[in-house]
Amino acid sequence: MRPSGRTPDQLRDVKLEIGFSKYAEGSCLAKFGDTHVLCTATLEDKAPPFLRDTGQGWVTAEYGMLPRSTHSRMGREAARGKQSGRTQEIQRLIGRALRAVCDMEAIGERQVRIDCDVIQADGGTRTASITGAYVALYQCFKRMLADGLIEKMPITTEVAAVSCGIYEGTPVLDLDYDEDSAAATDANFVLTGDGRIVEIQGTAEEEPFSEEELLRLMRLAKIGVSQLVKKQKEVLEG
Amino acid sequence: MRPSGRTPDQLRDVKLEIGFSKYAEGSCLAKFGDTHVLCTATLEDKAPPFLRDTGQGWVTAEYGMLPRSTHSRMGREAARGKQSGRTQEIQRLIGRALRAVCDMEAIGERQVRIDCDVIQADGGTRTASITGAYVALYQCFKRMLADGLIEKMPITTEVAAVSCGIYEGTPVLDLDYDEDSAAATDANFVLTGDGRIVEIQGTAEEEPFSEEELLRLMRLAKIGVSQLVKKQKEVLEG
Amino acid sequence: MRPSGRTPDQLRDVKLEIGFSKYAEGSCLAKFGDTHVLCTATLEDKAPPFLRDTGQGWVTAEYGMLPRSTHSRMGREAARGKQSGRTQEIQRLIGRALRAVCDMEAIGERQVRIDCDVIQADGGTRTASITGAYVALYQCFKRMLADGLIEKMPITTEVAAVSCGIYEGTPVLDLDYDEDSAAATDANFVLTGDGRIVEIQGTAEEEPFSEEELLRLMRLAKIGVSQLVKKQKEVLEG
Amino acid sequence: MRPSGRTPDQLRDVKLEIGFSKYAEGSCLAKFGDTHVLCTATLEDKAPPFLRDTGQGWVTAEYGMLPRSTHSRMGREAARGKQSGRTQEIQRLIGRALRAVCDMEAIGERQVRIDCDVIQADGGTRTASITGAYVALYQCFKRMLADGLIEKMPITTEVAAVSCGIYEGTPVLDLDYDEDSAAATDANFVLTGDGRIVEIQGTAEEEPFSEEELLRLMRLAKIGVSQLVKKQKEVLEG
Amino acid sequence: MRPSGRTPDQLRDVKLEIGFSKYAEGSCLAKFGDTHVLCTATLEDKAPPFLRDTGQGWVTAEYGMLPRSTHSRMGREAARGKQSGRTQEIQRLIGRALRAVCDMEAIGERQVRIDCDVIQADGGTRTASITGAYVALYQCFKRMLADGLIEKMPITTEVAAVSCGIYEGTPVLDLDYDEDSAAATDANFVLTGDGRIVEIQGTAEEEPFSEEELLRLMRLAKIGVSQLVKKQKEVLEG
Amino acid sequence: MRPSGRTPDQLRDVKLEIGFSKYAEGSCLAKFGDTHVLCTATLEDKAPPFLRDTGQGWVTAEYGMLPRSTHSRMGREAARGKQSGRTQEIQRLIGRALRAVCDMEAIGERQVRIDCDVIQADGGTRTASITGAYVALYQCFKRMLADGLIEKMPITTEVAAVSCGIYEGTPVLDLDYDEDSAAATDANFVLTGDGRIVEIQGTAEEEPFSEEELLRLMRLAKIGVSQLVKKQKEVLEG
Repeated sequence: MRPSGRTPDQLRDVKLEIGFSKYAEGSCLAKFGDTHVLCTATLEDKAPPFLRDTGQGWVTAEYGMLPRSTHSRMGREAARGKQSGRTQEIQRLIGRALRAVCDMEAIGERQVRIDCDVIQADGGTRTASITGAYVALYQCFKRMLADGLIEKMPITTEVAAVSCGIYEGTPVLDLDYDEDSAAATDANFVLTGDGRIVEIQGTAEEEPFSEEELLRLMRLAKIGVSQLVKKQKEVLEG
Repeated sequence: MRPSGRTPDQLRDVKLEIGFSKYAEGSCLAKFGDTHVLCTATLEDKAPPFLRDTGQGWVTAEYGMLPRSTHSRMGREAARGKQSGRTQEIQRLIGRALRAVCDMEAIGERQVRIDCDVIQADGGTRTASITGAYVALYQCFKRMLADGLIEKMPITTEVAAVSCGIYEGTPVLDLDYDEDSAAATDANFVLTGDGRIVEIQGTAEEEPFSEEELLRLMRLAKIGVSQLVKKQKEVLEG
Repeated sequence: MRPSGRTPDQLRDVKLEIGFSKYAEGSCLAKFGDTHVLCTATLEDKAPPFLRDTGQGWVTAEYGMLPRSTHSRMGREAARGKQSGRTQEIQRLIGRALRAVCDMEAIGERQVRIDCDVIQADGGTRTASITGAYVALYQCFKRMLADGLIEKMPITTEVAAVSCGIYEGTPVLDLDYDEDSAAATDANFVLTGDGRIVEIQGTAEEEPFSEEELLRLMRLAKIGVSQLVKKQKEVLEG
Repeated sequence: MRPSGRTPDQLRDVKLEIGFSKYAEGSCLAKFGDTHVLCTATLEDKAPPFLRDTGQGWVTAEYGMLPRSTHSRMGREAARGKQSGRTQEIQRLIGRALRAVCDMEAIGERQVRIDCDVIQADGGTRTASITGAYVALYQCFKRMLADGLIEKMPITTEVAAVSCGIYEGTPVLDLDYDEDSAAATDANFVLTGDGRIVEIQGTAEEEPFSEEELLRLMRLAKIGVSQLVKKQKEVLEG
Repeated sequence: MRPSGRTPDQLRDVKLEIGFSKYAEGSCLAKFGDTHVLCTATLEDKAPPFLRDTGQGWVTAEYGMLPRSTHSRMGREAARGKQSGRTQEIQRLIGRALRAVCDMEAIGERQVRIDCDVIQADGGTRTASITGAYVALYQCFKRMLADGLIEKMPITTEVAAVSCGIYEGTPVLDLDYDEDSAAATDANFVLTGDGRIVEIQGTAEEEPFSEEELLRLMRLAKIGVSQLVKKQKEVLEG
Repeated sequence: MRPSGRTPDQLRDVKLEIGFSKYAEGSCLAKFGDTHVLCTATLEDKAPPFLRDTGQGWVTAEYGMLPRSTHSRMGREAARGKQSGRTQEIQRLIGRALRAVCDMEAIGERQVRIDCDVIQADGGTRTASITGAYVALYQCFKRMLADGLIEKMPITTEVAAVSCGIYEGTPVLDLDYDEDSAAATDANFVLTGDGRIVEIQGTAEEEPFSEEELLRLMRLAKIGVSQLVKKQKEVLEG
C-alpha cells in the first residue's frame, strides 16, 4: 500500500498551468501533487560562443529550489556562493533532455534559457521540471514562429519525465517524498511520447537490482509518460 | 495621470494570501499588483552565536528574485556565486524592519528566518516583502504560542512598507515599475500601524528634493501603510 | 550630556586635507574627530559598458575599512573573499550621492572611480566618506578642466553628509561611536549646500520614531551640512 | 569497424596496478587503454558529522583531471575556483557506486575518502575511476582488518563499471574518445560481479533510443564488467 | 646616477612613526621615501588551532594595498574576491620574518596578528612592511609585559629588511619604483641587527647573475639594515 | 648522517622521463627520489593580453598537488575553491625561472603554459618541478622549430633547481621530506648550467644564518645543478 493510497501505476494529480509568468516567452507551473515547479523560457538573441557562425542554436537550463520549498529549510545557494552538485546535476539533465528533442538548426543562432524553480518540493522535482520545461519551451518556439523568427517548429517529438522505484518490494510510479526516502531503488526516465528513451538514470539505494526489475520500472514509466505527454498536448493545444 | 490610471494616493490591488507553503511555520504570498513575493518564516531552535546565553532571540531575512521574475532575465545569483549589493541591501532592510517591532526576549534563544522570494516583479518588491514578511512572522509566532514555546506574542506593533515618489511632478503612492523607472525621487517608508517611522530611505534619482516634498511623500505613505496594516489584520484574524 | 562634551548641534572637529595622495587625480583625507577616511578619485578613460555610445560618463565608489581601523580587529574582506553587505550598502550610497550632483554629459564617456578607505573608525564613516569624496571628485574634475578634457565643471551643487540621532532622548548632530552604539534612532542625511535632500536614511534602532523627531534631526543635519560645505569650499578654493 | 580495430564486445587493454602510491591506505592506477586514472583511498578517523553517534561509517569520492590529461588543455579547476558540474556529477556517481557495495556498520564511525585523478584521458574516465576505486577501497579495508580496526570486510560484493554505446549503428563495449564523440547513444553501467545493477545512466546523444537497444548495451556491459571484476580479483588476491 | 640622486649605498629618507593607530596594541607608519605602510599589531587571546595545548603562541601577518596607493589604480582585492598571488607571497614572507625572531613559548597560547596596509607605494613595500611590523610587534609585546600577560620579551633579536638591485650596472641600496622597474636583478634581504640572514630572495629580472654580484648586494643590505635597526631602536626606546 | 644514507653533496636518484603524456607538446615526469612531478608544456596560439602587438611571447606555469601525494591527505584545492598561498608562490617561481632563460621575441606572440602536477611528494617538489619543466619546455620549442613556427631555439641557457639546507649542523644537498622538516635553514637555488643565479630563496627556519653558511649551501647547489643539467641534456639529446 502506498502512503498516498495510489495504485502502483498511478501518477499523482498532475497540473500544467501555462501563462503563469507575465514576462517570459514561455512559462508553465508544473504540479505533480505537492511538488510545484515554475518553468520559464527566455529567448536570447545570441547563441553561446561555441556555436558562433555555425547557424545552430542552443537550449540550456538552470534549476533552483526556494529555501523553504522543502520540509526543513535548505541554505540559499546564492548566499552560500555556489550551486550544489545536486543542482548542477539536475540542470544538466534538464538541458540534455530538451536538446534531445530539438532541431538546433531550426532554432538559428539563438539560445533559449529554461529556468526551473521549485516552489514546493515533495519528491520528483527533476521530472516535474523536465515535463514543465517542455511546455515552456514549446510556447517560446510557438511565439518565435508567430513572430517570423523561425520557419518551422524546432521540436522533433514530445518529451516528459517520471520517476519510478521499488517501494516495499513493489515497483511504483511517480514517487513522492515519503516513498522516495524509503525506496530501495530509484530510477528517473526521460521518454518521448512514443516510449523511446532520451535518458535513463537508475540507482540502487540499498541493494543492487536486476535487469528484470529495471524493465518493470520502465514499463511503469512508459505508462506515466504517455499520460504526461497527453497533458502537455492538452495544455499546448487547448 | 499615472500609467496605471490610479489616483496619486491609490495603492495597487493588494492581496496577502496565507497558507501558500505546505511546510513553513508561516507563509504569505504578498501581491502588490503584478509584484508577487512569496514570504516564508522558518523557526530555528538556536539563536545566532552572538546571542548565546543572553536569553534573547533573533529575526533575520533573506531576499532573492527568480531569474525571470523581471522583464528581461537576470542572471541567477546562485550561478554567479554571489548576492548582489542590491540583494544584500534589501535583505538587511527587511530584517531590521521586522526586528524593530519584535521583543527579542519574548522569542527566547531561537531564530526566525524569513525568506522573501520574488516570483514576479513590477516595482516595490522590497515593500511587498516587508508587508508579507510581517504576516509570515506573525503566523510563526502564533504557532509558537500555540505550541507553548513562548508565553506571549513577541510582536509589539504592526509594520508594513510602501514606496512613494515624485512622478511627472506629482507625489504618488506605491510606484509600479513604469513609474519607478521614471520617478525623479523615490522613497521607501517602513511605518507602524499608527504612523511612526521604522525606517525611511529617500533618494533623489535626478534632482535633490526639498523637505516639503519629503513630507508630502510621507503623508501618502501613511495613507498607504494604514491600508496595508488593515489588510494584514484581516488576513491574520480572518 | 554627550560623552564628548559637545553641544547637541556641534560637529566633531572636522578637517579635510587635500593632496594626501601622490598619484590620485584627486584626494582628501577626511577627519571627523577620530574617524579618518582617505578618499581618492581615479579618472578612467572609458565609461562603463552600459553607457557605451551615449556620450555620458559615470561616477562610482568603493569603500573599505582597514582591519584594525576599529576597536576590535575586523577580518580582512580580501581574505574572506567577499565584501560584506554593509560595505556594499555604503559604497552604493556614496556613488549615488555623488552622481546626484553631477552632470553626466559634461563628464563625457569617462568614469571617475572614488575609493573611500577608512584608516580609523569612530562612527560616521559613511558620512565622512561622502564629504571627503566630494572634495576628491571636485579636484579630479578641476584637473580635467585644466587638461582640456572637459569644457565645464560637471558638478551642479555641493554635497556633504552627516549623521544625526536621538541619544538619551536628545537629538544630536554627528554621532561618534559611543553615541551611535547607544542611540535609539540613527539617521544619515546627504544634503546639498542649500539644504535640499540627496538621500536620507533613518532607522529606528529601538523604538519607532515620529515624523516630528525626524524633522528635528533634519534641522540638525542642515546645520551640520552647511558647515561641512563651508569647509569643502575653503579647502577647494584655498 | 571500430577505430581501434576492436570487436564490438572487446574491452580495451585493461591494467590495474596496485601499490602506485607510497602513502595512501590503498591505491590503484587503472588503465583502460590510454585512459589512466590514479585512485587512492585515505582512511579518516572520523565519520562525517551527519553520522555522528550512529555507529556507521561513510565512503566518499572526489574526482579531478590534470589540465593536460586531455587533447586540448582544460583550465585548472583550482585556478578557476570551482569544480565543474561534470566533475561533481562524476564524483557523486563514484561515491554512490562504492557505497552500494559497502556495509556501513562494518566500517564503524570512520570515513574512507577516495581520490580519482585522471592522468590521461581517452574516454571512459568515470568507469575506469569506479573500477580502480573499488581496488583501492578494498586494499584500505584489508589494511584496516589487518590492523584490527574492523572485524569483517565491509564489502558485500564486487563492483566495476564500463561504458557502452551505439557507434555507427552497432552497439559496442568500452567506448574510447573517438567512439564516444561520435556515438549516437552512450550509457554507463555500474554492475556487480554477478551482473546486478548498481547504477545505470543512458543518454541519447542524437536520437532517442529503444528499450531493445538499451538491453543490447546492457548485455555488452555484463560481458565487460565480468572481465573487469576478474581483473580486480586477480590483482587483489595476487 | 640614481634617478633620486642618492648614492649607491644610501637609503631613502626613512621615518618610523609610532602611535598612529588609536586602537591597535602596537602600530607604526613606516615611510621609506614615498612608500608608506601602516603596520598594526592585534593581540588575540587564542593561538591558532594547530597550536592548541602546546603552550606556544604564533605571529602571523596580512598585507594589502589601497587601490590607489599605486600610480595606476589596482582593482580592490575585496571586490575581486581574492588575494593575488603576490599579496599572499608577501604576507607569508612578513610572517616568517617576524616568527624567526620570536620565542614562541614566551608568547604563550596567544596570537599576534600583524596588518601591513600600503597607503602609498613607491617600491619596497614588503621591506618597509617588515621593518615597520617589527616595531608594531615590539610595542604589542611591551604592552603584554606591562599588563603581566607574559614574563619576558619574546623577541630574540631585531629584524629589518631592505631591497637591493643592480641598476644600470651598479649595485644600489633600497630601490624605489623607478629603479625597481628597470633593475636587471632584484633581491630582498631580511636581516638581523647583527647582519645574519633571516630570509633572502634574489631574482634575475633579465640576465642570470653571479655569486659575486649577490655578495655585493648583500654588503649593501647589511649597511642598510644596520641603519634601519638603529631607527627601530630609537623609536622604540625614545 | 643523513636519514637516507646519502653523502652531504649527493643528489637523490634523479630520473627525467620524457614522452609521458600522449597529448602535450612537451612532457617530463621528473623524479627526485620519491618526489614525482609530471610536467607538461602546452602551446597556445595567443600571447596573453598585455603582450598584444609587441611581437613577444610568454611562458607561464601552474602547480598543483594530488590530494594524496603527501603523507596525510591534503584538501583538494579545486574543492576548497582556491589555490593556497604556497601553491601560488611556487607557480610564480616556476614561471619566473623559465622566463629568465627564454628569448621572448624568439617565441613570437604565443604562450607556452607549463603544468607541474605533483603525483607524489617527498620534499623538493618545486625544484623537481623547475628541473622537469625545463625539459618539457625545451621539447615544446623543439617541436615548434620542427613545425616551422619559430626560426631559432628560444632558450638562452639551461636552468635547473635544487634545495640545500643545514641538517643537524651540516650543509646538505637536495633535502628530502625528513630532512626538510628538521632543517634549521632551507634554501632553494635556481641556477643556470654554468652556475649563475636565476633565483635564490633562503629561509631561516630556526636560527638566522650567516653569509658563510649561505655560501656553503650555494656551493652544494652548484654541484647539484650541474648534475641535473647533465641529466636534462642526456634526455633531450638522447
